[in-house]
Amino acid sequence: MRLERDDAAVCWDEVAALFVLVGWSERSAEQLKAASGRSTFKVFAYEGDELIGVARTVDDGQYYASIVDVLVKPSYQGRGIGRALVLDLQERLRDFLQVSLTAAADVRPFYEQLGWRRQTSALLLPRSAEQEASNCEEPRTSD
Amino acid sequence: MRLERDDAAVCWDEVAALFVLVGWSERSAEQLKAASGRSTFKVFAYEGDELIGVARTVDDGQYYASIVDVLVKPSYQGRGIGRALVLDLQERLRDFLQVSLTAAADVRPFYEQLGWRRQTSALLLPRSAEQEASNCEEPRTSD
Repeated sequence: MRLERDDAAVCWDEVAALFVLVGWSERSAEQLKAASGRSTFKVFAYEGDELIGVARTVDDGQYYASIVDVLVKPSYQGRGIGRALVLDLQERLRDFLQVSLTAAADVRPFYEQLGWRRQTSALLLPRSAEQEASNCEEPRTSD
Repeated sequence: MRLERDDAAVCWDEVAALFVLVGWSERSAEQLKAASGRSTFKVFAYEGDELIGVARTVDDGQYYASIVDVLVKPSYQGRGIGRALVLDLQERLRDFLQVSLTAAADVRPFYEQLGWRRQTSALLLPRSAEQEASNCEEPRTSD
């Protein structure tokens, strides 16, 4: 496995296929390329010529950064590839003021091993009842 | 009070002064301008020619966005300016997949009134013990 930070040779159809393989909602190759173009840091994992993982930041170049779209091809999961991708980005975010991410419950222990802590000061503007249910605490009942 | 979305006429020294006035850590005008240049959406509040508030996004243009640097000049606080700034950005983020922010405990009720919910799926990579203490849950004691 090798990590590649340059996206000049990336096949964006292959990235789009990865989203489908891991069961995330479908994205177009064109939009993925445009969004990635806005990321200061991105990293791609390859086994030979096969794209087996991706990760990138959403950031403003100096103060705030989030790590997003950490995906590893299902047949390659459990081999430390996600860890290598995240650590590669973490290293490059050392000078940022605030570094965060959103993680499903089942992968939180993975991030906690890499130094991440549950954030209690984050708020979300829910896009759907489903997103609210899986990412937010129970709304307070009005009384 | 008027809102201005275009930053062509912004005096970045005035923005930097605002950070000092609200008691945030000092930032250079040059770096603030560069960071703001990475934001798809930004908004500035003016009373006459006086800059009295700012807010912007950190985003990738389509999927992920955070609202950051929401500042209102102390002498103008409590007049709905922060609310106007945040609502202006919220409106423009309607098509994004995930919209989040980080808020100190004392301003969370303000955001909750605008539709935000406490996010339980956020993780932070702490930059300092101080940042960890004010943004994260107590680390688990190892046993």
